[in-house]
Amino acid sequence: MTIPGPYLLYLGDARDEISVKTSRGVAVFRPDLSLGEYRRTSDAVTLGLPQMSFAAAASAGAKTLILGVANAGGVLGDEAVEDVVEALEAGLNVAAGLHDRLQANPKIRAAADRTGRQLFDVREPPASLRVGAGVPRAGRRLLTVGTDCSVGKMYTTLALARALAERGVPADFRATGQTGILVAGAGMPVDAVVADFISGSVEMISPARHDGGWDLIEGQGSLFHPSYAGVSLGLLHGAQPDAIVLCHEPGRASMRGLPGRGLPELQACLDANLAAARLTNPDVIAVGVALNTSKLDAAAARDVCAATSEALGLPCQDPFSMGVDLIIDRLNECFGLSTPQANTGR
Amino acid sequence: MTIPGPYLLYLGDARDEISVKTSRGVAVFRPDLSLGEYRRTSDAVTLGLPQMSFAAAASAGAKTLILGVANAGGVLGDEAVEDVVEALEAGLNVAAGLHDRLQANPKIRAAADRTGRQLFDVREPPASLRVGAGVPRAGRRLLTVGTDCSVGKMYTTLALARALAERGVPADFRATGQTGILVAGAGMPVDAVVADFISGSVEMISPARHDGGWDLIEGQGSLFHPSYAGVSLGLLHGAQPDAIVLCHEPGRASMRGLPGRGLPELQACLDANLAAARLTNPDVIAVGVALNTSKLDAAAARDVCAATSEALGLPCQDPFSMGVDLIIDRLNECFGLSTPQANTGR
Repeated sequence: MTIPGPYLLYLGDARDEISVKTSRGVAVFRPDLSLGEYRRTSDAVTLGLPQMSFAAAASAGAKTLILGVANAGGVLGDEAVEDVVEALEAGLNVAAGLHDRLQANPKIRAAADRTGRQLFDVREPPASLRVGAGVPRAGRRLLTVGTDCSVGKMYTTLALARALAERGVPADFRATGQTGILVAGAGMPVDAVVADFISGSVEMISPARHDGGWDLIEGQGSLFHPSYAGVSLGLLHGAQPDAIVLCHEPGRASMRGLPGRGLPELQACLDANLAAARLTNPDVIAVGVALNTSKLDAAAARDVCAATSEALGLPCQDPFSMGVDLIIDRLNECFGLSTPQANTGR
Repeated sequence: MTIPGPYLLYLGDARDEISVKTSRGVAVFRPDLSLGEYRRTSDAVTLGLPQMSFAAAASAGAKTLILGVANAGGVLGDEAVEDVVEALEAGLNVAAGLHDRLQANPKIRAAADRTGRQLFDVREPPASLRVGAGVPRAGRRLLTVGTDCSVGKMYTTLALARALAERGVPADFRATGQTGILVAGAGMPVDAVVADFISGSVEMISPARHDGGWDLIEGQGSLFHPSYAGVSLGLLHGAQPDAIVLCHEPGRASMRGLPGRGLPELQACLDANLAAARLTNPDVIAVGVALNTSKLDAAAARDVCAATSEALGLPCQDPFSMGVDLIIDRLNECFGLSTPQANTGR
C-alpha cells in the first residue's frame, strides 16, 4: 500500500479537536506531505494549512484527499460521501481509516470507477491473521497506554521513537490505528481485526528483534473504557511490553463518547495495566507519564507534571510542549539503551 | 437463520474431546435433533450416537451436517473440505462455526451451487454492530467466566438457564460461541466480531429486561489466556453482569493451545474478573464455581468441589454430574429469584 502524496487533509464541519485527530496527526508528523486543508464551513476546526477546494488542491499538485475525521463507530456520513465523490471527480485519490469502507459505498465506488482514481481503506486488516501465542520473544518493546481514548498515545509514541532515533538507538514506531498507519505508511488497524486475533495481530507487527533496538507500539483505547477495553487488553498482551508509558489529559471531565463517566485515577490505571501486562511479560515496568496539557497555560502544565511525577514516582512530561527527554532518560537508566551506530565523530 | 434438522454430527479424525466440543454440545443439549455421527477413522472420538456415512444419514432423514470440530484459529482443513463436498453431494446441508467460512471456499461453494444445498456459517456476525455504551440497563444478568478456554462455560450456562426455568424463573440462554448458537438457534459469535464492537455486540444480545427474569450469558476464553483475553474482557464489560460463576477444570496442566503455560489460581482469576466487571456494574458478585470433573472419579470430584467451596466461600459443583442447585440457591439468597408464573397447582 503506497498512498500517493502530497495530501489534502479533510476537516469537514468538525467543531472539536478530537474528531479531526487523524488529519491533525498527519499534518503534525508529515508536514512534508500536507499541502492544504478542506473545510465545509468557515467555523470548522482548522489546522492552519492553506484552505483549498478539491479542484484547487488538485491544480496545486495534491494527489490524495485524506478523510482524517473520526466519530464513534467510524461511520461514513452522507455529507462525507458527497465530498468524497466530488474529490474523486476533481482528480484526487481518497484514503480513509473508518470502519465504514470507501470500497463498500456504491456511490463512492462508482465515482472511483468513473474517474479512474484510487481508494485506500487503511482500516482494512490483512487477510491472514493468527491468534496470539504469548511466547516470550527477543527485543525490547515499549507500549503507550491511556486513561481514555484520544489522550495522546500516538503522539507520545511517535515522539519517543524520534527521540530514541536521535540518540542513535534503533527504534521503530509500530502503528495500530488509522492515523498512525497514514503517518508511518504501515501498521495494523488493531481495532478493526476480528476479535480472536487482537493479540496475534500485534505480535505480527512487532516481531522479535536482535539489534538492541526498540519497538515503540502505539496503544489504543483504555482498559477503563467500557466500549474498547477488549482491544486495549489484547493489544497489551500481544505487545508484550518491557516498558509502558501512561498517557492522560488532565482535566478531562468524562470518558470519550460517554458523558457522565469519569476517568480512572492515574495510579489505579497504571496498576491495572501493569497487572494485565505481566501475563505475557512478568518483568514489565512503567517508565513515565505523558500528559496532554494543551488546555492549560505553561505554569499550570509544569505544575501538573511535577505533581504527577511526585505522586507516581515517574518522570512526567507533555511530549508536545516539553519533549520526552526525561522519559527516555528513565528508559536508559532501567534498560541501558544500546547505540550500535554511535556517532564516533561527535 | 433456521438450520434444518435433524443433524448428522461431524467428528472427523479428532482424538481429543476439546476438538469436538461443538458436536458434543449439540448432542448433549439437542438430543432431539442429533440423529447420528460421522467419523473418518474408527479410533476417533465418539459421541455414542449411531455411526453413519453421509449417504446413510441422508437416507435416514438427516437434513444438515454439523461441522462441529474446532481448532485454534478456526481453520478449515483439506480433509474437512473434502468431507463437506461429499456431504453436500449426498444431499445434506452443512453448518459450521469456523473462522474460515464455508461460503468463502470455492470448492464448497461450487458443490453447494451444484447440489442446491444450503451452507450456514454461524460465526458470521451481523452486519450492523455498534460500540458498547456501558450504560446501566434493567434486568438481571449472570455471566460465566473461566480460568481457560473449554472448561465448561457453555455447559454451565445452559444448565443454569434450565434450572432457573424449572423453578419458574424467566431465563434466557444468550449464546456467544458457535456451539451455543447451534444449540440455541440464535446468539452472537463474539470472537468473530470486529474488535471495536466486542462489548457492544454483547449489549445487543442481552438487552434490558423488565420481567424479573435473568439472562444467562455464555462466557468465552479467559482474562488469563494471552490469545483471547481481549474477547473475554469486552464480553465482561458488555454483559454488565450482576452475578458471575467461575468455571474451571481441576488438574488441567496448561492453558488451551499453550503448552507450558499454567492456569491462574482460582481466587486470583475470580478477583480479576470481579475487578474488571465493576467498570460496568459496581455491584457484581460471584455466586458459585463450576468445575469440570470429568477426568476424576466421584469421590475425588466431591473432594475437589468441597475444597474449592471452602477456599473461595462459594457453592461449588460439577454441573454435569452434580447439577447446579447449590449455585441457584445462592443466586436466590443474594437476589431473591422472582417467579411470576409460579405453578400454583403444584
